[in-house]
Order: sequence, then structure tokens, then C-alpha cells
Amino acid sequence: MSGLVVALSGGIGGAKLALGLSRVLPPQELLVVANTGDDFEHLGFYICPDIDTLIYTLGGVSNTAQGWGRADETWSFMETLRASDPEQAWFLLGDKDLETHRARTASLRDGATLTEVTARLARRFGVAASILPMSDDPVRTHLQVEDESGIRWLPFQHYFVKLQCRPPIRRIEYRGSLQAKPSRRLQFALQSGRVRAVILCPSNPFLSIDPILALPGLRELLIQCGAPVVAVSPVVGGKALKGPTAKIMAELGMASDCQSIARHYSGLLDGLVIDQADREQHGALEASGLRVTATQTVMQSLADRERLARGVLDFADALAHDDSRI
Amino acid sequence: MSGLVVALSGGIGGAKLALGLSRVLPPQELLVVANTGDDFEHLGFYICPDIDTLIYTLGGVSNTAQGWGRADETWSFMETLRASDPEQAWFLLGDKDLETHRARTASLRDGATLTEVTARLARRFGVAASILPMSDDPVRTHLQVEDESGIRWLPFQHYFVKLQCRPPIRRIEYRGSLQAKPSRRLQFALQSGRVRAVILCPSNPFLSIDPILALPGLRELLIQCGAPVVAVSPVVGGKALKGPTAKIMAELGMASDCQSIARHYSGLLDGLVIDQADREQHGALEASGLRVTATQTVMQSLADRERLARGVLDFADALAHDDSRI
Repeated sequence: MSGLVVALSGGIGGAKLALGLSRVLPPQELLVVANTGDDFEHLGFYICPDIDTLIYTLGGVSNTAQGWGRADETWSFMETLRASDPEQAWFLLGDKDLETHRARTASLRDGATLTEVTARLARRFGVAASILPMSDDPVRTHLQVEDESGIRWLPFQHYFVKLQCRPPIRRIEYRGSLQAKPSRRLQFALQSGRVRAVILCPSNPFLSIDPILALPGLRELLIQCGAPVVAVSPVVGGKALKGPTAKIMAELGMASDCQSIARHYSGLLDGLVIDQADREQHGALEASGLRVTATQTVMQSLADRERLARGVLDFADALAHDDSRI
Repeated sequence: MSGLVVALSGGIGGAKLALGLSRVLPPQELLVVANTGDDFEHLGFYICPDIDTLIYTLGGVSNTAQGWGRADETWSFMETLRASDPEQAWFLLGDKDLETHRARTASLRDGATLTEVTARLARRFGVAASILPMSDDPVRTHLQVEDESGIRWLPFQHYFVKLQCRPPIRRIEYRGSLQAKPSRRLQFALQSGRVRAVILCPSNPFLSIDPILALPGLRELLIQCGAPVVAVSPVVGGKALKGPTAKIMAELGMASDCQSIARHYSGLLDGLVIDQADREQHGALEASGLRVTATQTVMQSLADRERLARGVLDFADALAHDDSRI
């Protein structure tokens, strides 16, 4: 089958599946939509962590051990900063990575849109598939947390990097999202009538996917695009493989299982891909009206990424086929 | 003797003498005034080459082999830039050096003056003496050159780094200098009545010292400050030890010798320090009414820098003493 595959993604976990998709699809058939709720300005640079992780991963220059940043990185800038201004040194910026932030900041200041800058950077790293920021307008994820310091709102990176997700979350806001327009290219794509599948990558639903879904009108465009919407569960065996997904689910009063993921995305999803470790939830999930497939969603090797990508596409294609028979 | 020593300096050559001065004077008795005509914005950074060379040199972190930049530098940012945007990679920025430009740019954007930012950076590198930009207002050196491409104006770094001073110079302009005010701290110092000596470091007269002297009122303040004004000749044996001084003198129709230097600074200088290699010019120079001393001005070792610094101070003190007898 051909057609456009639209993948919504955050950083590390989502980028793994996006890489798999990029290796099994022709480049013109893949549109990866990146969360920009994590973006922030720091040290005078405009930093887009999820976009960069996607570009580095698909460009084959990422540090695969840590999942973010560049391979063969050096840290002279960071060591210098730490020695001179340690308070500012909480967000790690490698010397090579820095040129990405430098180039983006300069281009934005010259009047380019984030979409244009992202396309330019992706080209730089030889990424043939399209990587799109979810919006050219700023959206900033803020978290209301409560700990021994009381109740307070924190900007995303402060919570995520500086405090390493320790304070329990009470509420989440995607500030600016009501005024933000979904990426124009994404809107065109979803209205083109040639979307093959919409894939919600196994990213953190609250921190990576919801900021995208919070854009006015986007949920409706996804539902009406004529293609199945399929999520890959970021929870396996009751745990998130990476990051604070399970911890946040508990803090928000959810069980950290696939059924909570299904409920969280209810009204949007046609299908859910779960890990074989969660096979026993298959029946309960399908009883709720959702189509479900169980496979190995844990991606260690490059082959794992490609296999999952193929599995997700096959599953979506089967859903589309079933729908068309109705 | 005590009192304030005011040293006007460009980058590499001047910084050598400034280092010597900083090692033989108590920190509160040395004010190094840096040329900012070379400053420019590049890649989104506000770069002050002469200030940085002075800070790194006096802070003991400079690359003494090349004279500019930091010791033990790495080049990952630069290699990344060269690979992705080679047209922009003509000005070398080391990974450690980059944090200096980053910090300055951010502070200026936050509303700090260049004087404040420079003081902060100097403190960072443990420089106890004062390093002052000549002005908080932008002055930009431009050069009118003539070569096979015709006659055209070039901004300083384009001429100096990109074209490596190859095109012959016809004219030089210090743009913005008529609107620029000399550093307030420099004005106060020169009017304090406690200046011991004004030293024109062995920097390029046209590219490093003249932009400072072009600031409205500064020449008069130097002459009226009550202390001897002494230059160290940047020309030794008819050649400049470093940089294009001799080449530019030839292009501007001057002989590249100490007498041209004396004439160039006429009306300002009380004394000139020449190299012993130029001893035979001593008589002719003194005949023009200038006091002259010959010593070793070539600075290879740290001891050379200190010895020249002491020699220049002794010479200036002797001139002051002679004056006071009149």
C-alpha cells in the first residue's frame, strides 16, 4: 500500500519508531510531526529537544546509548560553562549539538519559520523524510507540581531536566496552544485524502502527544482524515520503558496499563498496538470497541525498530481494509 | 612610583605588553583600554576579538602559540559548522571560546553595557587588572581596498580574516566613532590627576590604536592628563613582528620605520620606545623633539614581557621627572 503515513512523536521513544518507519517507507510517504511543547530558550539559544532528537536519530548521527544528542560528542563548551556559571549548566549542550541550536536561533531571528528551519536542519543531516514541528506558534508545556516546597507551576525543562521529574504532577498545561495553529503542511496533508495511517508513537502521552493533540482543530482533522489512527502503547508490563510515563499516570490517578492508554486516547484511536507482555489485556481492550494487536514493541536493535514499524503499518492497513468492507 | 597606568591595546601584540604590565604592576594601577573597532556580529554572536585576546592572555588561558583563542581548545562546533555551512566557517571559534561569545551576547541582549560584560568576563578568568572597551558605543573599522575586483569597502573581519589582509588598503574609516563616547571609566581615569603613564602598546597603529584615538575628545584627554604618553614601536628593523602593519604602511605611502610611527602619533607622544635593532634612528627621532629609548621590544618569553613593561614604565617615569623639573 502507499499513501502518507503521519507519525506524531516526542523525543527518544517516539524517534525509535520514527526511525523504523523511515527505513521501511519511501521518504515522500512519511511525515513525522514533532512535539514542540518542550521547546525553550536557554543561554540565548532556541532549543527544540524533540525535533533535534528526531533529526539526529533519522540522520544517523544520534548517540544511540543515551538516546538524545549527537554521537562522538565533545563537551568543552559545557565544561567551560560549568566552571564559570554552574547555575546555568543544568541542560547538557554538546559542542556539535550547539551548532544546531546556533543555526536555528539565527534563522528564527532572521524571520524564518520553525517549519523552514526544521526542514533546513533535516536536510543538513541527510534526513529525506519530512520532520515537521507541530506548529510554528510557540506552545510551552507547564506542570503544576506539589512537593515539600508546596504547590507551584514549573516550565517543562525545569521539571524534566533540572528536577528530573521528581515532584509529583497535579496538572499539566500546554500554554499557548489555544492561540497556536497546527502546522499548515500538516493540515494540508490531513485534508489531502491520501493519508494511509496516523500513528501515535510510543511517546509519553501527557508530555509528548497531548501537546500536539491540544492544537485547536487537530484532533478533528486526524479523525476525519480517512485513515486509521493507531497508537503504540508506551506502557509495557505496567511500566514505561523510558521516562516518567508510568510515574505520571500514577500521579494523575490512572493505573499504568494499556487500558489507561486506550481510555486516554478514546474517541481518537481506531487501533492500539500493545506489547506481547500485555497479551492478557487484549480481550478487555477489544471489548471496549478498539482493535488491538500484540507484538514486540520493545525496540533494542535497528531490526526491532523496522519490525515494529512494519507491524504497525500492517495493522493500520488491515484496519483500513476492514473499514472499507463495512 | 605609583599612579594609574593606562595602556591602549589591540589584540595579540598589545596583549603581550599588557600581560607584562599586569605582572609588574598592582592590579588597581593598570587600566587596559581595548580596541573595539574589530568587533562584529557573526553567527548570532557578538564577538570582541581584542577584548577576548586581552582577557585570555591576562587570565593565563590563551593559546600562546597562536596568540589568540584559548589553550587546550577543541573544535567540534567548528567542524560541524564547516561540514554543514562551509561559507560561514571562515572565522575560527573554538568550543571553549564559544561560551565567552555566548555569555557576552546574552548579557548585551539583557541590557548590560559592554563595559559591564567585559568586567564580568575578566573576573571569570581571574584577571585582576581592569580591561575596558574603548567605548560602549559601536565603532566598526572599515577598509577601502583596491585589487583586481576593483575598489570597494570591506568590514574589518572580512578584510582581516576572510581575505587575510591581502587587498591593498586605500583608506580606513572607523564608522560610528563620531557618535561614540569614550568609555566613561576611561574619561574619569584620565581626569583623575593620578595617571602615571599612558602607553600605546605595540599594536597596529591603523587597525588597533587609531580606532581608540578617533573617539571624540579622547586625544585631548590623553594629552591633558598630566602623564607622559609613550608608544612602543610596532615596527622593528623595518618590519612588523606580527600582522600587516608594515604592509599597510607601505600601501598608505609611508616608510615602514620608527620615524613613520613617530610622525603618525605626532602631537600626542612624549616618548617612543624603539627596538635596539633600530638604535641608529635614535638621533633623528630625538632631533624631532621626541624622547626616545632603545631596548629589546621583541617579546618571546614571559620574562621579555615583564622586562619591556618595566623598561617602558621606567622610561615614562623618567620623562615625568624631567618634565617636573622644567
